Amino acid sequence: MKKILVLGAGRSATVLIEYLHAQAALHGWHLQVADQSLELVQAKTAHLAQVESFALDIADPEALRAALVSVSLVISLLPPPLHPQVATVCLEQGCHLLTASYVSPEMAALDKEARQRNLLFMNECGLDPGIDHMSAMEMIDDVREAGGKVTAFHSYCGGLIAPESDTNPWHYKLTWNPRNIVLAGQAGGCYLHEGSRKYIPYGRLFEQTTPVHVEGWGEFEAYVNRDSIHYQDVYGLTHATTLLRGTLRRPGFCRAWNALVQLGLTDDRYWMEGARDLTLRTWLGTFLPPHPPEQVQQTLARYLSLDPNGSEMTCLKWLGLFGEERLGVPSGTPAQLLQGILERRWALAPTDRDMIVMQHQLAYQLDGHRHTKVASLVLTGDDAAQTAMAKTVGLTLGVVAVLLLQERLSQRGVHIPTAREVYQPALRMLASLGICFQEEMQSEPSPGL
Amino acid sequence: MKKILVLGAGRSATVLIEYLHAQAALHGWHLQVADQSLELVQAKTAHLAQVESFALDIADPEALRAALVSVSLVISLLPPPLHPQVATVCLEQGCHLLTASYVSPEMAALDKEARQRNLLFMNECGLDPGIDHMSAMEMIDDVREAGGKVTAFHSYCGGLIAPESDTNPWHYKLTWNPRNIVLAGQAGGCYLHEGSRKYIPYGRLFEQTTPVHVEGWGEFEAYVNRDSIHYQDVYGLTHATTLLRGTLRRPGFCRAWNALVQLGLTDDRYWMEGARDLTLRTWLGTFLPPHPPEQVQQTLARYLSLDPNGSEMTCLKWLGLFGEERLGVPSGTPAQLLQGILERRWALAPTDRDMIVMQHQLAYQLDGHRHTKVASLVLTGDDAAQTAMAKTVGLTLGVVAVLLLQERLSQRGVHIPTAREVYQPALRMLASLGICFQEEMQSEPSPGL
Repeated sequence: MKKILVLGAGRSATVLIEYLHAQAALHGWHLQVADQSLELVQAKTAHLAQVESFALDIADPEALRAALVSVSLVISLLPPPLHPQVATVCLEQGCHLLTASYVSPEMAALDKEARQRNLLFMNECGLDPGIDHMSAMEMIDDVREAGGKVTAFHSYCGGLIAPESDTNPWHYKLTWNPRNIVLAGQAGGCYLHEGSRKYIPYGRLFEQTTPVHVEGWGEFEAYVNRDSIHYQDVYGLTHATTLLRGTLRRPGFCRAWNALVQLGLTDDRYWMEGARDLTLRTWLGTFLPPHPPEQVQQTLARYLSLDPNGSEMTCLKWLGLFGEERLGVPSGTPAQLLQGILERRWALAPTDRDMIVMQHQLAYQLDGHRHTKVASLVLTGDDAAQTAMAKTVGLTLGVVAVLLLQERLSQRGVHIPTAREVYQPALRMLASLGICFQEEMQSEPSPGL
Repeated sequence: MKKILVLGAGRSATVLIEYLHAQAALHGWHLQVADQSLELVQAKTAHLAQVESFALDIADPEALRAALVSVSLVISLLPPPLHPQVATVCLEQGCHLLTASYVSPEMAALDKEARQRNLLFMNECGLDPGIDHMSAMEMIDDVREAGGKVTAFHSYCGGLIAPESDTNPWHYKLTWNPRNIVLAGQAGGCYLHEGSRKYIPYGRLFEQTTPVHVEGWGEFEAYVNRDSIHYQDVYGLTHATTLLRGTLRRPGFCRAWNALVQLGLTDDRYWMEGARDLTLRTWLGTFLPPHPPEQVQQTLARYLSLDPNGSEMTCLKWLGLFGEERLGVPSGTPAQLLQGILERRWALAPTDRDMIVMQHQLAYQLDGHRHTKVASLVLTGDDAAQTAMAKTVGLTLGVVAVLLLQERLSQRGVHIPTAREVYQPALRMLASLGICFQEEMQSEPSPGL
């Protein structure tokens, strides 16, 4: 009997465990779930009769080794820095490995050894990264196999809030890791535009956005998502002279977020003491040039050249930054203190539904003509627990796990899901689970930055 | 006979070696100079009959240990990361140590052991840090001993170019470490203003400047120099509600430099390949939004909201950024490539004279009245070799070395020169060497930011 071990029973585990539970019953596999916290793992699995759950201290190599004995597949939902030590024991015990995380240099270094041991370490099998690779590669390979050449590629993704739960001027709530949201973009971004490389530093990233339209869902804006040019190699887009991957927000978000960036509120490099009794207004004031205490709002507008009655100011005001509420934590970096504020303001209500939006835009040459192809995926969650984010991450891991255990994947070594043998069946299975792209008819892809 | 060993014969060593050579003759001390490069150390010492020079590989602990046998005082001009290993051997061999570098945590950790072995490890004995501490502490202690309380402290320093050698619209040339100039300010800055802490992120640092006037030398502007608030403890300024340390430039420099920062040209976090044959104009274009190739200049002005005929554009144009010159190096971070350009444009001609400018402004309460005190130091170099920078760093190390060898310093452990027993005689000796502050009559210190 094949054994699957899921490591980590946190937020993103719920959907995965339930999917695998059903698949295990169908195929006669055995499912185990382990977490540092016995309480958490039991809460997630108590209602699932066939699932074995236990507490496991990942930091204890002996315990990890024992847990992996006779396991066929390990799915690690642990924090990314822990993946390499799990992978090392997988090599030792002969287990395949699946993660939703970016391939780190440490993971990449295990490629040769994994091949030698006939193991597949498949990474980046979530939403972004994950579904983005699969769906983009399908469109690209289709063009290529028809004899076309992709000349421009735009790909956008965002974890947002469904229209019916959109109750604030940012049109945003926290549907995934808040720390990553606060720190997003700090390395700047780069992309390719008509053959020219383009670099944008952090301080300009949220100013330089692209409008994106998604049929039936309205308008969005995108800022450049880290190193887009890297994907020229990953996706084999040798003929593309334009290449941009972006992160989606509703229009206006980026300009307001940029105000926080410009003030230095997202800085994570120094520590501020004595925060507990500061009001948000006083705290904000420390990031402004000297001013009379009652003129924080006016000073900020002048400092950042914002319209005092504009939408950026509305957003900042809505966060309570000009108000008398207290920070309430003793200390932290500016980014950590901002995160605390956002976790109160942007919290999902139990009945709130999140929304993930993804869109790929391809331009290509075929038979001497220029063509375009646009495909979009929009998925909303059921509530604050069964989020679209948890579904897309959990089910993507789930379907790849099934393919792997069914021995339908021939690759060995360290990979991401860009090969047709992976993405084609995976996307079909995801579509049957309600996660499916719509092709849009459009004459031209939306303009670049 | 007391032995002094100078480690490192680089640019800042010349003045120090010549000063110590004369002092050694006077006091009957023996002077040794060692460097990785025998050629360099011989070039610096060949004309000085009494100086012993030799090659030394600092990375070889045995060689270092042998070199320090029976040495009384080691003066390390080595790169700061090497100081701790020198300090460790100093502890072992019982040598005092003198540096012009900031006290690192590793150095600070040696305090107790140095005390136990009756050794003085005196750091920050250059210009800034160095003369700034000494001269500031003298003013502060004088106020305190007269029964006054310092309520505001501003301190500014800059390594600039003398008016007669000022031949470019930046009013700036490279008179010290170019890499440090390009990366200056990346950690942002903070200061205290009328009791409020103020934080400025890197992206705003060069926008928020203070005008500074120096009698006889005209106008300057200052940007905040890292963590000013830290100096409340270092200088014992418990009553000061305003505290700012700034770096001086000539007016207009900071606005033009800010354009380079905003574009991302000072970014040191990613690597750019294929640079060699790029023209500066094409390279600059990669940091701009898409534009027709011939419109780099207009695009930049629009992107950064600069007056197309303003002084910032004049400065950028003068650097050749809109021109056809080639980068000429294969690759580098944006900051490294920019440094290469600046090293050509801002090079000191052999006869150019540099200028260092320092000013302290104190406001204090005494006998129920508010008083102010302003003192400035301006020193110009002789030429591109005997710079004011080399003189102030070399002679400050020199005079402290003399005080130490004359056994006039009672402190033991790891220190910086803020105690009266150090700064008082050191400043007198520096004054006799032509490095002396002028008190200015002024009704009020210049306004804060």
